[in-house]
Amino acid sequence: MPDNPAALDVAPLDVVGIGNAIVDVLAHAEDRFLEDHGLAKGAMTLIDGAQAETLYAAMGPGIEISGGSVANTMAGIASLGGSGAFFGKVRDDQLGEVFAHDIRAAGVSYKTAPAKEGEATARCLIFVTPDAQRTMQTFLGASVALGPDEVATETVAAAQITYLEGYLFDPPLAKAAFIKAAEIAHAAERKVALSLSDPFCVDRHREAFRDLVDGHIDVLFANEEEIVSLYQASGFDDALQSVRGKCDIACLTRGDKGSLIVAGDEVHIIDAVPVANVVDTTGAGDLYAAGVLYGLTNGHGLAEAGRIGAICAGEAIAHMGARPEAALKNLVAKSLG
Amino acid sequence: MPDNPAALDVAPLDVVGIGNAIVDVLAHAEDRFLEDHGLAKGAMTLIDGAQAETLYAAMGPGIEISGGSVANTMAGIASLGGSGAFFGKVRDDQLGEVFAHDIRAAGVSYKTAPAKEGEATARCLIFVTPDAQRTMQTFLGASVALGPDEVATETVAAAQITYLEGYLFDPPLAKAAFIKAAEIAHAAERKVALSLSDPFCVDRHREAFRDLVDGHIDVLFANEEEIVSLYQASGFDDALQSVRGKCDIACLTRGDKGSLIVAGDEVHIIDAVPVANVVDTTGAGDLYAAGVLYGLTNGHGLAEAGRIGAICAGEAIAHMGARPEAALKNLVAKSLG
Repeated sequence: MPDNPAALDVAPLDVVGIGNAIVDVLAHAEDRFLEDHGLAKGAMTLIDGAQAETLYAAMGPGIEISGGSVANTMAGIASLGGSGAFFGKVRDDQLGEVFAHDIRAAGVSYKTAPAKEGEATARCLIFVTPDAQRTMQTFLGASVALGPDEVATETVAAAQITYLEGYLFDPPLAKAAFIKAAEIAHAAERKVALSLSDPFCVDRHREAFRDLVDGHIDVLFANEEEIVSLYQASGFDDALQSVRGKCDIACLTRGDKGSLIVAGDEVHIIDAVPVANVVDTTGAGDLYAAGVLYGLTNGHGLAEAGRIGAICAGEAIAHMGARPEAALKNLVAKSLG
Repeated sequence: MPDNPAALDVAPLDVVGIGNAIVDVLAHAEDRFLEDHGLAKGAMTLIDGAQAETLYAAMGPGIEISGGSVANTMAGIASLGGSGAFFGKVRDDQLGEVFAHDIRAAGVSYKTAPAKEGEATARCLIFVTPDAQRTMQTFLGASVALGPDEVATETVAAAQITYLEGYLFDPPLAKAAFIKAAEIAHAAERKVALSLSDPFCVDRHREAFRDLVDGHIDVLFANEEEIVSLYQASGFDDALQSVRGKCDIACLTRGDKGSLIVAGDEVHIIDAVPVANVVDTTGAGDLYAAGVLYGLTNGHGLAEAGRIGAICAGEAIAHMGARPEAALKNLVAKSLG
């Protein structure tokens, strides 16, 4: 809660998220398909419109589901009963309407105006291999048009945590929006959280991300590959030693090995929630972050926030797509008792 | 197989399908939502563009998957290893591209040119209630623009079976395409199959459908409600007595009670394939028809064709959406041994 709520002209929010506004196109694919097309398994690769067309033509029948890393997290927070807003840019086309509909229908405030010209709404072609791993090829399209002017100061200042994705560093305007939002949040004495997004994204922006983590980020989310890449570490433990003390709270995920939450001297080991039938790991990290951010902004301790994150990640991997299918609030109530 | 394959200028096909080209938008909904919006549970209702917009605004977050009853069946036939072609109209918009991509990626020949003007690609808002029942609200959009000129004579003449949906009787041009296709097929000594589609659709076109079944249709697909509605019968058995002898083969589905296949004196009782977790019944009938049509055009007897249909329907109801997620060919090989 803010020190002086009366100074705010909108109601305080749990979390405001800023990210690329993307519609996912998911299809099953064999490992052979990834090899034939030279796709980096498990990673997110940026492609242009022409590449997206070629790859879509070769792709099997798909399912369209609204996506985008931070947008998925915001949908998860709303499904947990938290309050949130999202900033991200679509075009005024059919997929843009789908994105806007879905995030609003999930219960997230979304007011970014769609672009009236330029590239089409961003899409991410996701190939789900038989091991349930997802390989992502993203055409950023209209999402690169999100600029700092579209991030509402009063909304960011009203949120307990501003959540940003590393992917925002790829389009220059979005990067400016990222920096503006972080500055507003800190000026209002709010917290700033960051997801490193993807090991290749870390490769592209390593120095900037190290600088951010070391002094500007309060809550960091990274998976094993990302944190190892950030510090060019020899392994997970080595990376853990590097990140300790750099940000207030670091949440490090390791797939079915669970996650670690480190805050100063406090270290919590969070087991993964067992899932009988892992269908598609798309969104596991996004919904883990949803659970943790919801927990932190709703009075839960670090360990309990981590457990909520693990429950949400378990829901995400039991079905195709990254947005929650079940009401996460009920799942958490059942598990935590 | 045709009597004289050399007379055909395209390779013989198992099945050619003609239907409305629709993208489904699926979302979970409570029964209360259906009541509040006056929706007829379990049925398909036609709505206009304005109604579609209002309802979409009230709908929860969705998943977009290519649909359309006959188009789903054609995707199922291809997944079984059968050969097929589809005629149906989309617009040159994003959802039209999705439809065209998905049906081609499924392995179905699809050459209908998209409309360059007029209404947007058809969409069907599908509300999946907790009992896995689906309630459909369809905006026919561009699909009403499919006319008889777009049905290629040589393709229809080359297919063992031409498969038509009762829904085609709603748009007048599509109805003309339906009648033309049936005439071409019979002139080429091929078979014509029909799905009654929906009990309300039967209500709208009862006399025409009775006339079709009684003399023009070789293979009929209907569920219990549809066949009861067609003959305004007192119950299933009463309807069964009415349809016997009217068409060569009648395939009557009864949900988890299984199905009946009646051909003259031959009657087969086909048990439903048990499914542990019924998620969404959308497409159960469409994929049942896929299995039966594949069986009939690939040398299987009536009983075995029915069993293939039951296996395919079982796959359809174990996940969201009407298109098969698993390779039906492998499922059938495993089940039939």
